[in-house]
Amino acid sequence: MITDELEIRVRYAETDNMGFVYYGNYAIYYEIARTELTRNMGLTYKQMEEDGIFLPVNLMEIKYIKSARYDDLLTIKTVVEQRPSLRMVFRHEIYNQDKELINIGKVSLVFINAKTGKPCKPTQRFEKVMDKYFK
Amino acid sequence: MITDELEIRVRYAETDNMGFVYYGNYAIYYEIARTELTRNMGLTYKQMEEDGIFLPVNLMEIKYIKSARYDDLLTIKTVVEQRPSLRMVFRHEIYNQDKELINIGKVSLVFINAKTGKPCKPTQRFEKVMDKYFK
Amino acid sequence: MITDELEIRVRYAETDNMGFVYYGNYAIYYEIARTELTRNMGLTYKQMEEDGIFLPVNLMEIKYIKSARYDDLLTIKTVVEQRPSLRMVFRHEIYNQDKELINIGKVSLVFINAKTGKPCKPTQRFEKVMDKYFK
Amino acid sequence: MITDELEIRVRYAETDNMGFVYYGNYAIYYEIARTELTRNMGLTYKQMEEDGIFLPVNLMEIKYIKSARYDDLLTIKTVVEQRPSLRMVFRHEIYNQDKELINIGKVSLVFINAKTGKPCKPTQRFEKVMDKYFK
Repeated sequence: MITDELEIRVRYAETDNMGFVYYGNYAIYYEIARTELTRNMGLTYKQMEEDGIFLPVNLMEIKYIKSARYDDLLTIKTVVEQRPSLRMVFRHEIYNQDKELINIGKVSLVFINAKTGKPCKPTQRFEKVMDKYFK
Repeated sequence: MITDELEIRVRYAETDNMGFVYYGNYAIYYEIARTELTRNMGLTYKQMEEDGIFLPVNLMEIKYIKSARYDDLLTIKTVVEQRPSLRMVFRHEIYNQDKELINIGKVSLVFINAKTGKPCKPTQRFEKVMDKYFK
Repeated sequence: MITDELEIRVRYAETDNMGFVYYGNYAIYYEIARTELTRNMGLTYKQMEEDGIFLPVNLMEIKYIKSARYDDLLTIKTVVEQRPSLRMVFRHEIYNQDKELINIGKVSLVFINAKTGKPCKPTQRFEKVMDKYFK
Repeated sequence: MITDELEIRVRYAETDNMGFVYYGNYAIYYEIARTELTRNMGLTYKQMEEDGIFLPVNLMEIKYIKSARYDDLLTIKTVVEQRPSLRMVFRHEIYNQDKELINIGKVSLVFINAKTGKPCKPTQRFEKVMDKYFK
């Protein structure tokens, strides 16, 4: 299992007319959480792209519990429960500064060979890192 | 049942490093589809906000089948299958110019009283319009 | 001189906490105006990219006169006053549905060879189209 | 004179089809730089809004020198040269991780009374803080 935690400050650009974070922008928060989780494992998504692998999202589910507002300091807790094979699934829980759970997200990504556009397995470099987290 | 169809041109701002529409931006397409569907029914979301009702999203599910690219002309088919009571559920199918189904989205919104912040029933004006579509 | 006019509906995603269009989002409106102006001339920006030319922005100036709100129907008037050589300069005026001038933008783009990353001249296809508009 | 410095990591959502940060998104970086600069002075923009003052942008100028890419770690240097009276002008210089100057921005904001929608003077709380920086 891989876990990570990240703090994020809500930007003005991310709010909308209701005064809340626009509902589509949680996808950005998940993306940053994924990016930092992989960086903390010693991998970068940029490197994967340079290795010829794209990781497009094939599924996303979001449950909106409470709204976030401008300048809120959010904590994103991220978990990868299963060892990635053809896909990699991230679960995110977002908490506000009052420690209230405000949002739950699940994002599934697939490994795609950038040249063929077909699904593929992760690189060896990736697998080696996974060995540390999954038996 | 309410159905609607809408064409949308992919903007440069909506693409990302992979050359595809950024996965969070489909939420924007759904929003525009909802807006135009309600406008075509003789309602506007702006008016609902002026009537003191907010319609925040409480659930979203997206299935990404094929990617959309810059300047693609997309068709969004939207369906509301059930008469809205406390919530209103939209189902969206997005097709590209080659008539391929590239994306499926389901978005659920709840009626919220802007003053109390609590769930509420739709306005009478809204119900009258619904009478035309649902028995 | 090349002129064009375009209508745009303000999206919810484009508004912010103040209830106005976020100040950075006018750049998106200019981009769409450029895209449609070139399309109306028989060129597409997508085609230019396929011809190996990028057109990054090197300068932008925006004067914000009045704010735009959610669901406003805006008219963007665009002018290219001078024949493009190494750069192409667009001037935009944005009007709201009450015919008030709310925003003025100037955007300058440079022709860049996608391979070398260096400034270059427009393609012959581009020049031929320009011949129709500039003596 | 007020100066501040801030690091920002380029998000995937901020890139576009060219592989660069979308030209409109620099406005977001300036916004974050302003927010953090005012926070470091002991003020928050959120608080100003709660005090009944909006600070919309009335002018922006951007010079794009070099492009930023996904995952770049950017440094934004911000300067307020003159004591704000009816407006507040921020100058931003953005550097990449190779210490190259890639972008220059100038953003001018006006103090607006949220109730009347008219220009107004800063609050006393704001003026007191300014006294520390300007004679």
